[in-house]
Amino acid sequence: MISGQKTQESILIKAMYSASKTGFEALSIGKLASAVGMSKSGLFAHFNSKEQLQVDLLKAIAKKFVEVVITPSLKASRGEPRIRAMLKYLLAWADAKFMPGGCLFLTAIVEFDDKPGPARDFLVSNQKLWLNFISEAASLAIVEDHFQKDLDIELFTFEFHSIYQSYHYASRLLNDPLAESRAWIMLDKLLERSRG
Amino acid sequence: MISGQKTQESILIKAMYSASKTGFEALSIGKLASAVGMSKSGLFAHFNSKEQLQVDLLKAIAKKFVEVVITPSLKASRGEPRIRAMLKYLLAWADAKFMPGGCLFLTAIVEFDDKPGPARDFLVSNQKLWLNFISEAASLAIVEDHFQKDLDIELFTFEFHSIYQSYHYASRLLNDPLAESRAWIMLDKLLERSRG
Repeated sequence: MISGQKTQESILIKAMYSASKTGFEALSIGKLASAVGMSKSGLFAHFNSKEQLQVDLLKAIAKKFVEVVITPSLKASRGEPRIRAMLKYLLAWADAKFMPGGCLFLTAIVEFDDKPGPARDFLVSNQKLWLNFISEAASLAIVEDHFQKDLDIELFTFEFHSIYQSYHYASRLLNDPLAESRAWIMLDKLLERSRG
Repeated sequence: MISGQKTQESILIKAMYSASKTGFEALSIGKLASAVGMSKSGLFAHFNSKEQLQVDLLKAIAKKFVEVVITPSLKASRGEPRIRAMLKYLLAWADAKFMPGGCLFLTAIVEFDDKPGPARDFLVSNQKLWLNFISEAASLAIVEDHFQKDLDIELFTFEFHSIYQSYHYASRLLNDPLAESRAWIMLDKLLERSRG
């Protein structure tokens, strides 16, 4: 499996797969090297520390999130259609095949929330971008006259995000067959009360 | 620090502290032995495998949760006062000193949701007890005429639980100074729409 063309990107895809099962801390350069069929020193040429590997991995996950959630959502019309699209793509993200052990952001949040450092810093700034994206979508829904003018956008943002957290919990931990339909009901109710 | 009176309970308190920082998988019998000042073989007398340690640790966390959240909530009057008390004690739980790295249930959920075995089984049954506790509190609020008769109790349950998830995320990861006040606003709105 050792190959000269093995790029950093393909290593990171493998790392995503592993980290979703074991978490970020358990992902050592040694284990990853054997998973991708490279020598430890060969892998060190790509990531010179475990910390660097974690940051690069988070950046790769963020890039994937843009591909899977952000870009397709932007193709939906502004206002409610885009917000519905965001939930649709989020649910697809939660079940993505490259993260068989569950959402890597939720894993990263639990692991890094109490660990100051560059991984946490990147994660926080990236999550803020995501929350801003939700807020922006809500603002556009006001402009489109889908939502009431005095909507509490910040509250909307956290309520929207919590639908995702709730879905992941019900679907992954509880194997709840109603997880998906409940996520849509939660969104319907949130949209309903946002209209005023 | 080696002492004959060192009980399983005091070891588990130490294990909670560590697991909240490192997660459950990283908590080896060897590391825990050195943290509590016992020999590895001495600790094996209490927990004969890492798997057993994880299950016993989850049971100890569940017992703590009863002390910190369930029992004090039951002292509040049925209906809305009890539901408010539940949020109050949940927020205290999220910030409990014996879990400096954050809520051990959220850590366990991320770690065990994709790992079949006795730890996952215990966690799922325990989370179902908690969800039932929320549902029961909502049912009592209907009986007390605080909530409308046709309330969707299951939806209420997940919405209530998601306030906690959202609080933990905003407070721990984002260090958001509004995390607590937003949790109370989310509850106020949830109660308001539950009244019908």
